[in-house]
Amino acid sequence: MTGPDSEFDLIRRYFAEPARTSPDVLLGIGDDAALLGVQAGQELVVTVDTLVEGTHYFPDHPPASLGHKALAANLSDLAAMGADPLGAVLSLTLPSVDHDWLAAFSRGFLALAEQASVPLVGGDTTRGPGAISVTVLGQVPAGQALRRAGARPGDRLVVSGALGGAAGGLAFEQQRREQGQPTDEQSPDCARLFWPNARLALGRGLRNRARAVIDISDGLLADLGHLCAASGCGARVDWSQVPVDPLLEGQPEEVVRDWALAGGEDYELLFALPPTEPLELLSLSVRTSLTVIGEFTSGSEIEVVDAEGARLDVARRGHDHFAG
Amino acid sequence: MTGPDSEFDLIRRYFAEPARTSPDVLLGIGDDAALLGVQAGQELVVTVDTLVEGTHYFPDHPPASLGHKALAANLSDLAAMGADPLGAVLSLTLPSVDHDWLAAFSRGFLALAEQASVPLVGGDTTRGPGAISVTVLGQVPAGQALRRAGARPGDRLVVSGALGGAAGGLAFEQQRREQGQPTDEQSPDCARLFWPNARLALGRGLRNRARAVIDISDGLLADLGHLCAASGCGARVDWSQVPVDPLLEGQPEEVVRDWALAGGEDYELLFALPPTEPLELLSLSVRTSLTVIGEFTSGSEIEVVDAEGARLDVARRGHDHFAG
Repeated sequence: MTGPDSEFDLIRRYFAEPARTSPDVLLGIGDDAALLGVQAGQELVVTVDTLVEGTHYFPDHPPASLGHKALAANLSDLAAMGADPLGAVLSLTLPSVDHDWLAAFSRGFLALAEQASVPLVGGDTTRGPGAISVTVLGQVPAGQALRRAGARPGDRLVVSGALGGAAGGLAFEQQRREQGQPTDEQSPDCARLFWPNARLALGRGLRNRARAVIDISDGLLADLGHLCAASGCGARVDWSQVPVDPLLEGQPEEVVRDWALAGGEDYELLFALPPTEPLELLSLSVRTSLTVIGEFTSGSEIEVVDAEGARLDVARRGHDHFAG
Repeated sequence: MTGPDSEFDLIRRYFAEPARTSPDVLLGIGDDAALLGVQAGQELVVTVDTLVEGTHYFPDHPPASLGHKALAANLSDLAAMGADPLGAVLSLTLPSVDHDWLAAFSRGFLALAEQASVPLVGGDTTRGPGAISVTVLGQVPAGQALRRAGARPGDRLVVSGALGGAAGGLAFEQQRREQGQPTDEQSPDCARLFWPNARLALGRGLRNRARAVIDISDGLLADLGHLCAASGCGARVDWSQVPVDPLLEGQPEEVVRDWALAGGEDYELLFALPPTEPLELLSLSVRTSLTVIGEFTSGSEIEVVDAEGARLDVARRGHDHFAG
């Protein structure tokens, strides 16, 4: 993380303050690397996520929201491991130095960093096509990390919160753009799209309870596919039980289904709960709405059925930045 | 690190194998995050570095060298902290999926990863303008990390190896390009440019010996500036003592001086050695050539002098990716 003065100063100027407040941070931004304390009996968790301008966000995406989202996506991966945040490093590639943009971006990033107790401990800025790469470190008691592998046939398939809100928000935002209306990052219909939440408390609550966990970043069916592949099992999803974001009310059925089953970026957790584990107690203890939406099955197929058990055809299962 | 199938498969296909070999890696590529064991009594070190196509490397930079360099730059930051590598995560942004390129890039990256015992534990691939972001984690015995702060007036200023080889290699490579000759990544005059080494063993050897350490990535004078700023002191560099790469023989004096004092990417270590610490023993124990090139002074000035102590004017002190 060596950098010439003005690069170095960009990180220091906009991002350096809060790292000093955490007792885990022994050395924050400004040296060759950061130093963190890891408590005895903990394992280290590390995850990276990169957002590229034009691929993951509009060039004029509100910068405060972008700072928030770049961190939230990574925190969601920590949540899916049942981990507590330890620190983050940020690599920012910018076409030019725009101080208003940087001030807003860092405000969004740091507000979430403070709220989630994840100090920014290091960073790097470079000139180039816009991209934001965040690496987040966390810790989890030894042996208690929540993996994708572990679901067994007969386990309940559970999801937190409601789905489809991010995909819906994106569609509404695109509509507004086509009509020449300005982006409003505070618009309630874009809350999930612009200000996603990572389910950190839920992730912690699932330790020693859930058999397998993943976060929904690519869409329910795509991420369920990853979880089933890692666990070596299949799953049946009861569409009539899937909790749908209230934002989607009044939309045509096939649109709602597409947004809730294949839309990405909801950042809810999807997990396998063994039959012996009481759902209601868990839901109360983590103060999060949890819904059983199906079960894990033997085999490898993922099927979606209606309330009568009849199979539904689902056209789109998720998005892929390298596809088509 | 959730990703749709084909992104996920790119990382798994080209990078997944070696992570399984390290006892520190509890869970490698393929889950929401990686899991690492950190030994008791160790502090965690984390650093990130991003290379952007067009800014840090030519679009046709030989991909095996690029994989090597992206990791080496980060390992050099670990070396400058006196840390042992623990693991790396890679975020790769590519304009398109070029399997030959990926095979060569991963070969270069993984060969160095194996040599330096730094397993790749996680990754992320995205479509977009070319960029390579690597985060490296390391560990260092508690309290022994080598920082930039700590140099005191009267300490000797010491550098490892020789300087200017990377800048010289880049100039020769640019000359060849202007003459329409193909890039030869095995050309001896480009060894430092294409296949830099991180001084990990030296970094370890400097624990409890050096008072302050930095790696030379931006150029001797620029990085010395960072070290002096952090330590709150100045420095005097005796140009006649600076070890210059043999590659630069026969070049005009002002060119040699520019490449050795202001050229970046040599990845040698620059450090403050207290007067009580014998240099020769240290040099033998780390099997690295070490040279005293000056001393730390009070004040904040960094001056370059000749063998007679007369001050030399130095035009360029380092490069800045955001400068003009």
